[in-house]
Amino acid sequence: MALSMRCNVKSVFRFVHKSNSHRRLFKAGKATGTTSLPKAQVFSGIQPTGVPHLGNYLGALESWVALQDKYSTVMYSIVDLHSITQPQDPQMLRENILDMAASLLACGIDPTRSILFQQSQVSEHAELSWILGCLTSMPRLRHLPQWKMKSKQKNEGSVGLYTYPVLQAADILLYKYGQLCSSCVLILSRLYSQLCVRERVMLLLCRSTHVPVGEDQIQHLELAQDLARIFNNQYEEFFPEPCALLSGTRKVKSLRDPSSKMSKSDPQKLATVFLTDTPDDIVLKIRRAVTDLTSEVTYEPESRPGVSNLVSMHAAVSGQSVEEVVRLAEGMDTGQYKNVVAEAIVQTLQPIRLEIQRLRADRGHLESLLAKGAEKAHSLAAPVMTEVRKLVGFY
Amino acid sequence: MALSMRCNVKSVFRFVHKSNSHRRLFKAGKATGTTSLPKAQVFSGIQPTGVPHLGNYLGALESWVALQDKYSTVMYSIVDLHSITQPQDPQMLRENILDMAASLLACGIDPTRSILFQQSQVSEHAELSWILGCLTSMPRLRHLPQWKMKSKQKNEGSVGLYTYPVLQAADILLYKYGQLCSSCVLILSRLYSQLCVRERVMLLLCRSTHVPVGEDQIQHLELAQDLARIFNNQYEEFFPEPCALLSGTRKVKSLRDPSSKMSKSDPQKLATVFLTDTPDDIVLKIRRAVTDLTSEVTYEPESRPGVSNLVSMHAAVSGQSVEEVVRLAEGMDTGQYKNVVAEAIVQTLQPIRLEIQRLRADRGHLESLLAKGAEKAHSLAAPVMTEVRKLVGFY
Repeated sequence: MALSMRCNVKSVFRFVHKSNSHRRLFKAGKATGTTSLPKAQVFSGIQPTGVPHLGNYLGALESWVALQDKYSTVMYSIVDLHSITQPQDPQMLRENILDMAASLLACGIDPTRSILFQQSQVSEHAELSWILGCLTSMPRLRHLPQWKMKSKQKNEGSVGLYTYPVLQAADILLYKYGQLCSSCVLILSRLYSQLCVRERVMLLLCRSTHVPVGEDQIQHLELAQDLARIFNNQYEEFFPEPCALLSGTRKVKSLRDPSSKMSKSDPQKLATVFLTDTPDDIVLKIRRAVTDLTSEVTYEPESRPGVSNLVSMHAAVSGQSVEEVVRLAEGMDTGQYKNVVAEAIVQTLQPIRLEIQRLRADRGHLESLLAKGAEKAHSLAAPVMTEVRKLVGFY
Repeated sequence: MALSMRCNVKSVFRFVHKSNSHRRLFKAGKATGTTSLPKAQVFSGIQPTGVPHLGNYLGALESWVALQDKYSTVMYSIVDLHSITQPQDPQMLRENILDMAASLLACGIDPTRSILFQQSQVSEHAELSWILGCLTSMPRLRHLPQWKMKSKQKNEGSVGLYTYPVLQAADILLYKYGQLCSSCVLILSRLYSQLCVRERVMLLLCRSTHVPVGEDQIQHLELAQDLARIFNNQYEEFFPEPCALLSGTRKVKSLRDPSSKMSKSDPQKLATVFLTDTPDDIVLKIRRAVTDLTSEVTYEPESRPGVSNLVSMHAAVSGQSVEEVVRLAEGMDTGQYKNVVAEAIVQTLQPIRLEIQRLRADRGHLESLLAKGAEKAHSLAAPVMTEVRKLVGFY
C-alpha cells in the first residue's frame, strides 16, 4: 500500500518537473491511478520568538491563514530545535513557544484544518537530520551565507548553528507523504526578511510560479535539493526534489525609521506594533510614527516612506487598495490620518489580542492542542522514516 | 519521584567523584535515601561490522558476557547510526546488524539479563545528539584526532563523521537513570583497537580503577565530560560527568603476521578466525599459522610472537594459564601443538557457530529480540529526554 502510494507520488512528481503543466499533471495523476485532483501540502517552519508584530501578521501570518482554504494539508511547525542553535533562556523559550502557538491560532490558524505542532515533539526531524548529515560534506555547509555571517559574529558558533540547514532539509523532506502530487518548495524570502532575522520560513507548495528567492534561503533550499538527490542516488529514488518559488508579501516598515523594516528586536519601543498591544499602545505608536513635513496624505514610498507606510498598513488592515485609502484620506492632514490608521489597526488587532489573552490563560488547552498537532505530524513523518530506515539498511 | 531519584543520583555521584571510596559511596547512598547497594550500569556501543572474529571474542565479547553477572543493568547497543558516518551498502549493513546481534547472543549475551538493542530504534539518541550539538563549538570537534586522521583520508568526510563524537556523548549520557550510583566510563581502548578501526566501544562502569586510555577515545570521552558540564552550567545540574577507566584485555594477533593484531579486514584470508568458521577452516588456518624455525613450544611474545600467539589463544579458549598450557605442550613440536590449539579453538567456537547459525535461520525471532531490547532501552532513555526537554525549555 505504502509502496504503491510512493510509486504514484514519484511518477506524478517527475512529470511535474518535466512539464510544469497542471493539466498534464492531472492526467499523470489519472494515469498512475491517483483519483483525486492533485492537492499540495504546505509546510512552514517558524522559530518561537514570542508574540509576532504587525509586520509579521500582514507580511506572512494573514496569508498562512488563507492557505488553509487552498491546500489539503497545511503544516505549521514551531521549530524549537532550530531556536536552540543560539543560546536561549529556557523559561523564556517555553513562553515564546506558547506565545507563538497562541498567536498563530488567534490569527486564524485552525487546528482542525491545519497541523500546528512543535518540532521537538516529533522525533523524526532529528532522526532524519542525522541520516542526511551523513550524506552532507563539510565544505557544503561552510559556504552557506548564513553560517559565514553568523559565525563571524560569534567566533564560529556551535555545531548546531553549522548543521541547521541539514535539519531544515529534514524538515522539508520528512513530509513527502503529505505531498500527493508535487513538492515545490516556496520559500517566502520577503516574508522571511519581514519576520525577523531569526525566523526562517519554508513553505512546501505546488502550483506556484517559479521566482528567484533570497540568496541565503535559496542556498539552503539547494542543499535540501542536493540531499534529496544524493539520497536517491545512494539508496533508491525516494525523495522528490523540492524547487524554489516565491509569493509576494507586504513589507511593513518601522514606525520610527521607515527606511528599515518593522522588527521585534528594534531598540526603539515605539517602532513596532505587537499583536498584543492595547488600543492605547497602538494609538500612541501610530501618533508618534515618523512622517515628514508635508501634511497631505499621499502614497510615494520612495520620497515619502513614513506616510506611505501608514497608507500601506491602513490598506492592508482594512482590506482596501492603496488608491482607495489615499482617496479616503483626501482633505486630512497626516495628524488626522494617523487617528484613522490607528483606529483601523485597533479594529483588526483587538480580536486577535483578546484571543491570544484567552488562549494564553489556559496553558493546558494550548499544550494539548500542540500535542494533538504533534501526533498528526508524527503520523505523516513516521511512515517516511520507516521507509528511510529500510532504504539505509537499518531494517 | 523522578526528581527525588535525580537528586539521589547527583548526591551520590558527586560523592564518588570526591572520594572514590566505595564504602563512603555506600554511606552516601544511604544518607540520600537509596536503600539498595549501589549498582552500576554498563553501556557498550559496537558498530555492526558483521560476524566478529576470535580476537574480538577473546578481547572483548567474553568479558562482556561476564559483566552480566556483575552489574544490574548491562546495555549493548549495535550503533548503526555511527556506522553510516562512512558509506555503507544497505543490504550488507542490514545483514551485518543481524550477524552482530546473533553473534553477541551466541557468545552469551542473555537478552533476559542484558538490554541488547539497535541504536537507530531508539530515537532519543539522535534527539539528544542534536541538543548537545547546539552546545558544542565547531573547533572543539576539529581537533579530535579521529577527525584529523579520517578527514585527511577522504577529503574532509561528511558532517556525520565530524559530529559523531557528539552522538557518542549522547549515547553515554542518555542512560543516566540506569546509573544508580555512579557513571564512570570505561573505554576499553585495547579492546577498541582489538576490534577493528571501525568498531568503537564505550563502557559505562563504576568501581573500576582509573587508568589512562587510548588518546583518540580519551578525547571523545572528554567531549562527553565537557558536554555534561556545559549542559549542567547552562541549564541545571543534571548529567553526571563520566570519567575514564580501563580494563585489561587479551590481544590476539594475526595468524599470518603475528606483529599485527587479528583484524576482520586483513587481506590474507588465513590470518583471521571468524566465529562462524567451520572446524575444517579453523584447523587449516591454525596449521598455516606463521611460527618460526624453533620446534619447541614456549611463551616469548617479543622474540617468538607466532608461537606465543598460539599459546595465548590456547590459554584463553581453554581457560588455563599460559604456564599451564606451555607445560602441557612439553615434548610437542609446533606442528603437533597446532593440532591441539586448533582442537581447543574448535571446541570453543563450535557451539557459538551453531548458535549463530540457528539464530540467523530465524530472522523474525532475531528482529523481535532487537525490538524488545529497543523497547527496554527506550524506557530508560525516554524519562531522561523528557527531563532534558523540560530543562532546555521545550516543555
